Amino acid sequence: MSYYVVKKMGPKIPAEGIEMRVISGEKMTMVFFHVEPGAEIPEHSHPHEQMGTVLKGSIELTIDKDKRIVNQGDAYHVRSNVVHSGRCLGSASEVLEVFSPPREDYLQEA
Amino acid sequence: MSYYVVKKMGPKIPAEGIEMRVISGEKMTMVFFHVEPGAEIPEHSHPHEQMGTVLKGSIELTIDKDKRIVNQGDAYHVRSNVVHSGRCLGSASEVLEVFSPPREDYLQEA
Repeated sequence: MSYYVVKKMGPKIPAEGIEMRVISGEKMTMVFFHVEPGAEIPEHSHPHEQMGTVLKGSIELTIDKDKRIVNQGDAYHVRSNVVHSGRCLGSASEVLEVFSPPREDYLQEA
Repeated sequence: MSYYVVKKMGPKIPAEGIEMRVISGEKMTMVFFHVEPGAEIPEHSHPHEQMGTVLKGSIELTIDKDKRIVNQGDAYHVRSNVVHSGRCLGSASEVLEVFSPPREDYLQEA
């Protein structure tokens, strides 16, 4: 499939307050996250390189112990195996992230 | 660098009516495009897999002869070596695209 109407895709719920809609490729995985206030991703790392941007709202990220607020339109880059965490502060937010190589653990039926 | 304020990044101008701001990784390249009405990317292909989403406005895309309007929030996937083209119709639009492997031709100084 080449085209996706993201809002019509069924979400996965990886943690409380978080919805994800996944587009799986051969070399990368694109994920649209909806995150509710207070939702949190604890510290973790993975061999996949990760890039992201905030589509709506803002999130607090900590990448390699550097904590920042990432606002709508801003972007971030998590290198392979770097420890990172995130949480949603004031209002529900939308975040897009891309991973390479693909996240096999995120595979989703269309 | 882990964090980017995209609007403060200097743009490259790859074609008339198009600005791009590039974040380069090891396994992928993320590009924020600003496209003016009428701006056009003619048919082309590349070995890099490509995924994208429209951040603002809408664009007309043709992927493997399948022409669609992609609206804000929608996404698309161009597989390796698939012919595609695009143009901006009514109003200035913002598009995010990610490529893997990295686009060596898009390398940009910070």
